[in-house]
Amino acid sequence: MAAFASFHAEAGRKVVLITSGGTKVPLESRTVRFLDNFSSGRRGASSAEYFIDSGYAVIFLHRHRSLYPYTRMFLTINMLDALEFQGGGAPGNTGEVVVNQQVLPNIAKVLKRYEEVKKSRLLLPIEFSTLSEYLHLLKAAAQALSKIGSKAMFYLAAAVSDFYIPASEMPEHKIQSSNGPLQLSMKMVPKILSPLVKEWAPQAFVISFKLETDASILLDKARRALDTYRHQAVVANVLDSRRGYVVVVTLETQAELILTEEDVKNEVEIEERIVIGTDSCYSDPKSSAYQRHIP
Amino acid sequence: MAAFASFHAEAGRKVVLITSGGTKVPLESRTVRFLDNFSSGRRGASSAEYFIDSGYAVIFLHRHRSLYPYTRMFLTINMLDALEFQGGGAPGNTGEVVVNQQVLPNIAKVLKRYEEVKKSRLLLPIEFSTLSEYLHLLKAAAQALSKIGSKAMFYLAAAVSDFYIPASEMPEHKIQSSNGPLQLSMKMVPKILSPLVKEWAPQAFVISFKLETDASILLDKARRALDTYRHQAVVANVLDSRRGYVVVVTLETQAELILTEEDVKNEVEIEERIVIGTDSCYSDPKSSAYQRHIP
Repeated sequence: MAAFASFHAEAGRKVVLITSGGTKVPLESRTVRFLDNFSSGRRGASSAEYFIDSGYAVIFLHRHRSLYPYTRMFLTINMLDALEFQGGGAPGNTGEVVVNQQVLPNIAKVLKRYEEVKKSRLLLPIEFSTLSEYLHLLKAAAQALSKIGSKAMFYLAAAVSDFYIPASEMPEHKIQSSNGPLQLSMKMVPKILSPLVKEWAPQAFVISFKLETDASILLDKARRALDTYRHQAVVANVLDSRRGYVVVVTLETQAELILTEEDVKNEVEIEERIVIGTDSCYSDPKSSAYQRHIP
Repeated sequence: MAAFASFHAEAGRKVVLITSGGTKVPLESRTVRFLDNFSSGRRGASSAEYFIDSGYAVIFLHRHRSLYPYTRMFLTINMLDALEFQGGGAPGNTGEVVVNQQVLPNIAKVLKRYEEVKKSRLLLPIEFSTLSEYLHLLKAAAQALSKIGSKAMFYLAAAVSDFYIPASEMPEHKIQSSNGPLQLSMKMVPKILSPLVKEWAPQAFVISFKLETDASILLDKARRALDTYRHQAVVANVLDSRRGYVVVVTLETQAELILTEEDVKNEVEIEERIVIGTDSCYSDPKSSAYQRHIP
């Protein structure tokens, strides 16, 4: 991560660390059962594409098997339904297996872009599964990125558990249902935003995400997070409407981003708006999109 | 499911319902957090292929996005790394996107088999995510399959939660971490094997799976399940060794299936052995593989 960051910083690029997907919280040390947070990884994966389009190099710290930039378009279909033998099953066919571009109309465009990004090494994928892997890797990433100072951005879209069971309190083996109903007692996960902003990468631009199901408490919670951690922005969203409506909150501003019916018809994604707004705010602190907080 | 079962039963085929993957147990009614059971769905997906090879029609009741028959080979790679433009990026290329068969050497064979299976309609996929969807669909499947009597088999490889929170005790909204550490009190999930065997599909051949982390209690638990539910077989396995060693337990017999180093080198999968043994036991109750229990 450090090599990736310096390489791109020296080439004049900004570097964003995107976290994406949910964290797994084991209930047993030989884990059969775990607690998880709902997240397909869509927001992180699509944001990664828009950050690359905006000139960033991206470290993509994501949950194993969550949605991934560019390949995310395949995940709604069975890939074998999109493949066929060239020339059909006819004798004398070439043996080539080709993509049926009626099933995947965007494949050529996506593959071309994927190959360009791969060649220019703009995307560094890193995987986690458990909460402790996530915390460990985020700390390592922050320390790697601290070396490029204000050229680094953190875009913390992962759905991180607030609760865990300490290793010392965890049973080794699978919990037996013959023991009767399950009583779980979970501890609070320390808030990683605090050391991230204060100690590990104090010069970086940090955006966190706040997801709630109750819209009435959302903005209040977003403001409280900014007050507590003193980072640059919170993207606040509600579970049911998250793909069409978010509010970007900074210490001084509050911007609503909304997809219109027209946008949805044109397959505009709200992540494009979030990333463009975030970038203009980061690149030009006086931008009206949402002002950068300068402590 | 009923139409699928009668169609194949009339054509003289046996029909197996395979359950596969873990169940999601929501902690909130607008779900952000859930409990899950570890399962990639590998055992169910590969078993489905071997059952089809053995002449069965398969209802594949699986967790959304868990491993799937035939496509399971793609899931370890990024599909875009296996695609390329025909003739490279050169001018005058055909615009066709082809599979690089050095990256996916088995693709032609797998695609051919997938297309045959699709044409002969031997595979009916059905998806679940939550525990309650699973229980509801399994009951519906059992009732649909009861119409074909002893031509039906149940192969219950899904990793089903033993615990849940009743809707009446579930908070509507996301649990707030500001309320402090989390105390969860979970009820026992009713054992579905009991009504399945006794009421819903009493003539069917039923195989359940038992996964433990502690090998010392495994066989005892398998025997106890057979004594309680009086079904035909339990496939007993330990988390760490599940891909190379299982014990198939019936009321009268106990058979160890082991992959040798040679088998592993030849990419033999243990599911092939389980399915062949299960089929011979089902087709010929006196088979020495593992005897069918006749009440």
